[in-house]
Amino acid sequence: MSNKIPRSNDNDYSAEIISERQQFLEQQTGASLDHTRKFSFDPETMDGNCEHLFGVAQVPIGVAGPLLVNGEHAQGEFYVPLATIEGTLIASYNRGMRVIRESGGITTTICGEAMQRAPAFVFRTGREARDFSLWLKANFAEVKAQAESTTSVGKLVDIESYVYHNWVNTRFNYTTGDAAGQNMTGRATYVACEWISSNYPQLRHYMLSSNFDTEKKPSAVNSLGTRGRRVTAELTIPREVLQSVLRITPEQMAYGQTISLMSSYIAGSSSNAAHPVNGLAALYIATGQDAACVGEATQSTVYTYVDRRGDLYFSITLPALVMATYGGGTGLATQRECLELMGCYGKGKAHKLLEIAAATVVAGELSLGAATRRDKDTGKNEWVDAHETLGRNR
Amino acid sequence: MSNKIPRSNDNDYSAEIISERQQFLEQQTGASLDHTRKFSFDPETMDGNCEHLFGVAQVPIGVAGPLLVNGEHAQGEFYVPLATIEGTLIASYNRGMRVIRESGGITTTICGEAMQRAPAFVFRTGREARDFSLWLKANFAEVKAQAESTTSVGKLVDIESYVYHNWVNTRFNYTTGDAAGQNMTGRATYVACEWISSNYPQLRHYMLSSNFDTEKKPSAVNSLGTRGRRVTAELTIPREVLQSVLRITPEQMAYGQTISLMSSYIAGSSSNAAHPVNGLAALYIATGQDAACVGEATQSTVYTYVDRRGDLYFSITLPALVMATYGGGTGLATQRECLELMGCYGKGKAHKLLEIAAATVVAGELSLGAATRRDKDTGKNEWVDAHETLGRNR
Amino acid sequence: MSNKIPRSNDNDYSAEIISERQQFLEQQTGASLDHTRKFSFDPETMDGNCEHLFGVAQVPIGVAGPLLVNGEHAQGEFYVPLATIEGTLIASYNRGMRVIRESGGITTTICGEAMQRAPAFVFRTGREARDFSLWLKANFAEVKAQAESTTSVGKLVDIESYVYHNWVNTRFNYTTGDAAGQNMTGRATYVACEWISSNYPQLRHYMLSSNFDTEKKPSAVNSLGTRGRRVTAELTIPREVLQSVLRITPEQMAYGQTISLMSSYIAGSSSNAAHPVNGLAALYIATGQDAACVGEATQSTVYTYVDRRGDLYFSITLPALVMATYGGGTGLATQRECLELMGCYGKGKAHKLLEIAAATVVAGELSLGAATRRDKDTGKNEWVDAHETLGRNR
Amino acid sequence: MSNKIPRSNDNDYSAEIISERQQFLEQQTGASLDHTRKFSFDPETMDGNCEHLFGVAQVPIGVAGPLLVNGEHAQGEFYVPLATIEGTLIASYNRGMRVIRESGGITTTICGEAMQRAPAFVFRTGREARDFSLWLKANFAEVKAQAESTTSVGKLVDIESYVYHNWVNTRFNYTTGDAAGQNMTGRATYVACEWISSNYPQLRHYMLSSNFDTEKKPSAVNSLGTRGRRVTAELTIPREVLQSVLRITPEQMAYGQTISLMSSYIAGSSSNAAHPVNGLAALYIATGQDAACVGEATQSTVYTYVDRRGDLYFSITLPALVMATYGGGTGLATQRECLELMGCYGKGKAHKLLEIAAATVVAGELSLGAATRRDKDTGKNEWVDAHETLGRNR
Repeated sequence: MSNKIPRSNDNDYSAEIISERQQFLEQQTGASLDHTRKFSFDPETMDGNCEHLFGVAQVPIGVAGPLLVNGEHAQGEFYVPLATIEGTLIASYNRGMRVIRESGGITTTICGEAMQRAPAFVFRTGREARDFSLWLKANFAEVKAQAESTTSVGKLVDIESYVYHNWVNTRFNYTTGDAAGQNMTGRATYVACEWISSNYPQLRHYMLSSNFDTEKKPSAVNSLGTRGRRVTAELTIPREVLQSVLRITPEQMAYGQTISLMSSYIAGSSSNAAHPVNGLAALYIATGQDAACVGEATQSTVYTYVDRRGDLYFSITLPALVMATYGGGTGLATQRECLELMGCYGKGKAHKLLEIAAATVVAGELSLGAATRRDKDTGKNEWVDAHETLGRNR
Repeated sequence: MSNKIPRSNDNDYSAEIISERQQFLEQQTGASLDHTRKFSFDPETMDGNCEHLFGVAQVPIGVAGPLLVNGEHAQGEFYVPLATIEGTLIASYNRGMRVIRESGGITTTICGEAMQRAPAFVFRTGREARDFSLWLKANFAEVKAQAESTTSVGKLVDIESYVYHNWVNTRFNYTTGDAAGQNMTGRATYVACEWISSNYPQLRHYMLSSNFDTEKKPSAVNSLGTRGRRVTAELTIPREVLQSVLRITPEQMAYGQTISLMSSYIAGSSSNAAHPVNGLAALYIATGQDAACVGEATQSTVYTYVDRRGDLYFSITLPALVMATYGGGTGLATQRECLELMGCYGKGKAHKLLEIAAATVVAGELSLGAATRRDKDTGKNEWVDAHETLGRNR
Repeated sequence: MSNKIPRSNDNDYSAEIISERQQFLEQQTGASLDHTRKFSFDPETMDGNCEHLFGVAQVPIGVAGPLLVNGEHAQGEFYVPLATIEGTLIASYNRGMRVIRESGGITTTICGEAMQRAPAFVFRTGREARDFSLWLKANFAEVKAQAESTTSVGKLVDIESYVYHNWVNTRFNYTTGDAAGQNMTGRATYVACEWISSNYPQLRHYMLSSNFDTEKKPSAVNSLGTRGRRVTAELTIPREVLQSVLRITPEQMAYGQTISLMSSYIAGSSSNAAHPVNGLAALYIATGQDAACVGEATQSTVYTYVDRRGDLYFSITLPALVMATYGGGTGLATQRECLELMGCYGKGKAHKLLEIAAATVVAGELSLGAATRRDKDTGKNEWVDAHETLGRNR
Repeated sequence: MSNKIPRSNDNDYSAEIISERQQFLEQQTGASLDHTRKFSFDPETMDGNCEHLFGVAQVPIGVAGPLLVNGEHAQGEFYVPLATIEGTLIASYNRGMRVIRESGGITTTICGEAMQRAPAFVFRTGREARDFSLWLKANFAEVKAQAESTTSVGKLVDIESYVYHNWVNTRFNYTTGDAAGQNMTGRATYVACEWISSNYPQLRHYMLSSNFDTEKKPSAVNSLGTRGRRVTAELTIPREVLQSVLRITPEQMAYGQTISLMSSYIAGSSSNAAHPVNGLAALYIATGQDAACVGEATQSTVYTYVDRRGDLYFSITLPALVMATYGGGTGLATQRECLELMGCYGKGKAHKLLEIAAATVVAGELSLGAATRRDKDTGKNEWVDAHETLGRNR
């Protein structure tokens, strides 16, 4: 028997070819695909989302909430669907959402927007590279026109230039509406680069992506300059709420936060938050986001202090949240339903979804932040105990 | 109607309470959950994996392969299940696997193993902190005994100590068998810390997790010291294979790699690889791994050179791969089937799975690395074109 | 006897008070200051440069060169004075300068200029912070007028804004002529901030320096955005020159450079260059620069490759070179003479000096880069041997 | 006239050849070296410290103090010689030393010691590299014997191994007594590497220095693992002392410190301290240290908090202080006198000097930290004003 995966050039999403692949895999490997082959949607809707389709992962979804958001786009209470196989995760986020509700909700603000491609333009010398950086600035309008000729949605906002050695690293920064925009900006930037290549003869060559977009990984440039959207979520938690729900004082929280910040700095960590990606990965899977974008979304900073009234100010800035409410996997069967659960499917909804996501992250930070600090009085550690009670440690 | 999510204290995984939650959510939000409510497994199996369960995300799974691995644990050809909604992803990995096959397979090596908790021990002065670090070293045997009293699997290998200010940041490094081990090590370290706390009176207090474990985010300490497993995957690609399959020369690949490395260094990026998390997130979701661990797995380094015969040596080191074949979500319905597809379910299989994962990552790096470099001859860019042809750009 | 250092409120630079301090120190400590008290300049010229003056450090100066520079500002051969107590340093730089001469000189280019202060503006909420960042952009002209009212030389070029949490980190970027400009920009930014403070009532407070200028230490923002001047120095070294002078092939140099770059990236090092600060510290001390600025000047990147003819392209980008030819210590007795040795004293000379400095750095990189790689044929290591022969190891 | 720098193979430190070089330089450049040629020491003492000697930099030295140190090695009051041309620097450190005195002195602790060379060992594959790392661990005793055969002072304490790709980055960590030890460890490591090379046939080659020692630049590995000595200096400043001497409250200091720490973290800065290198560069020049080591010494962390009594705890950890009291430039004329001023010349004094240095750094941090925060009451900024009054801004 051939070891080649069956494939149909006519229609690779028909029931027949999918079934053929299932049988092939079962025969090749001896595994059974009893559950994996069970899905409720029309497989032809997967054309454009998944090649060599043979089944589905059934990832359980739980719900946390309601989450009270005082955003500019998300306003009111939301039920947040979280697809996860990690016990205690939803319970923990749910507890944090209670803190938020009892504090009067959480304020969310989109502070920046930029999806980018980062071509590198290479020259014979550094002097030529510097001169190009000046030319590029002077010719921005034409470059923008070229880039935007490829898309009705994407807008080229600016081009950052960094001159190193005999090349110029750039970031072509776009707004991309309700799409995540990685492909849209790839195409637009490619057309712009080809135009540049034709109009700047000294250019030796360019690389459309030099890894300076730092896609799907944390970086200094992403944090400083935004990737996707930059969102800040913040609230002031009354002392009594913190103590009654999380059994910790504002001073204990703030003290632990400083040690944690110092430790993150020393460790060379890309984030001083505890675990934004737990909630984000679960939300991304549930709502048809690109789960790999958790790679860049993990980057974040947390800042807290005890205010003059003795309450706790808490905020997180997420500089690289990449999410969409249109395109990609957002229209698929269960994914769309989960977006609709939050009123976030389709055009004009991306900012709303981003605010809910950032608010969700804070719920997780509050809950875990409190749990990991030692409870002197009881001699027990809530964090360990939660995993004993709810999780797979049993 | 109350806005409180329905919950049963008796059995929160019965069909009734799940149905009640579905109705509650539909009524509260106006959304329909027609697909989300359809799953093929017994919901009671989700106890310990997902609270407030109300349905599933159906994430399409395609297959790439066969992937020819010359590992110490994985040997032979494997079909790799990838759960993704990103068009072109599987096609791209599949192309990379062809390169690997035609090059005679890929060598994989587990180079390190360490799952950790990172308590911080705080003192009155830095001098006391320094003295404690010496005491901790001298009393390792007893600390180890305490930690290991909680687990039959986990072994405390060593404790790293970093003296800063008036505290000591530590990393308690364990091997954890076929489990990922975050909870196992949390519990073991907690017991060890309580013993330390009782036996070292000068200790003011400790934090069980000071963020120095840098869980689910990249960091210098993870890269230098391993988190989960450290895996290197490497191969030499004959010039003619590279040219025929990827239409690029070794020199072009190596040149582009250097610009990419420099750009990553300048950008303060946590990785100079292109996109390990694309393949890893898809594999993690398919096989019941904690998808949030993509946060730390994104960290990696790529190294290439053209050897004396004109072939391309390519290697990746992934210092923080956290994966399991036992516990967590690995035993769930579709997840277990996908593990079994690779012969990777259950005890004694973790190293095999890790080798397959690292090899998969290389397939994606080769394919995208070649595609993002400009094809001078045709004047077209493969990367952009692929998204036009296969993806959602259409 | 009082332990208080003698001080004169009338004139703290008279011979009498200096002598009194010398005697005080000798009596208090039992040390003799026979050499330290010997200087050839009028001590009153030190007013504004050194409080509590009691003598001088006599730091030996050697010379390396001639250094052949093909700059935009420095053109021709230069003799470079290096004040150092490190044996082999000058011999090593001198050897590198021979390589440069035999390669036809080195091309230097000033690619950027920005001395900055970095006030942080703090608000009640992140939403207010975001709104302020927009206001600041809209009101740049007035802020610029305020800042420039304090100086005839400094020009405010732009203000970078980074919105985090409830504050905005900014960098006020200036050109500062032939002065280094730290104080000039401090005063100008202070006046601008006071104006902002009066005109933006929602501002809670600001910090004139939030450490975001990262003065005297390497940082991502300095590298990306320039501090002082950004200079690239580059040359192509013919294969035969490299082999005859440094006894190494282009391929060996480039290979070693890649390992070194990877090692620097992995180590979390601020630079992949070998030792720019050796030459810079010696040049800074000789010419009256602020020696502490070595702290930021150490940051740099090196890029090399073997070109199609088999020669070695080598370049360094120094993004944070802070140097002056006017003000500070440049006018002092020996310091001015050393500047004049290179035709670099006074107004209009800063760019020339910066180009010579960057070219000097390359001389050191070439020499040490070749020496640290193992000489297989002889079984000896040049680097170790040099210290045996010339240095204090004897 | 030849452009070649005059040099004598017999004795390059005689009065004649030095005079010949002076004349050569004056003729070539038109500069006068009236002051530069004046030095009080015997030039032959410069053999081993400075090639191509032609004069001296006369760097003014002022004194700050007394500095009250409660160290393990430095105990009592010290007068600290600072060679600088930066106005206000000494006045600022002097003010900080007053705060320290009035607080009862400063506690200093040497928390680590490690001077290193960092050879990279390269293999055919990553699997071979991993195996070598195990062999190296098993054969440490023999490697140590080889290394220590070259020195009566240096001791090889341990070897860190980091397996990446097909090589192993190592750090050979030594104690080096009262010498800085860069050359001593270079020679010892070279001999050890040659032994390894002879005894491990699979080794393809090694690089004695792969830049993983990160000499003279900040890095994650230096901070985590120490370079030279790791010193913590700390004190608790009574509220009334802080307010009377620095006119700031503990709460203002701590608040500003947190913003500064966050800003440093965001900026990707190697240090959250304000300016350790100002004092260190001045002290290094005065006492014959390698001034370029400021490059690595700039790395540091500051931690503060307001304690329960309302006083301010302040500490700094300097993980990479490289200083000597023996060898290098420490025995030269003025340099030795300045060491003797602090009772720090010669053998057995290095730890004492390091403690004084770290304590000096804190004086500067306190003074500048207070000055840069805005004085709301007076509407003036002390930091700007100080430069107006004492510095070159006049």
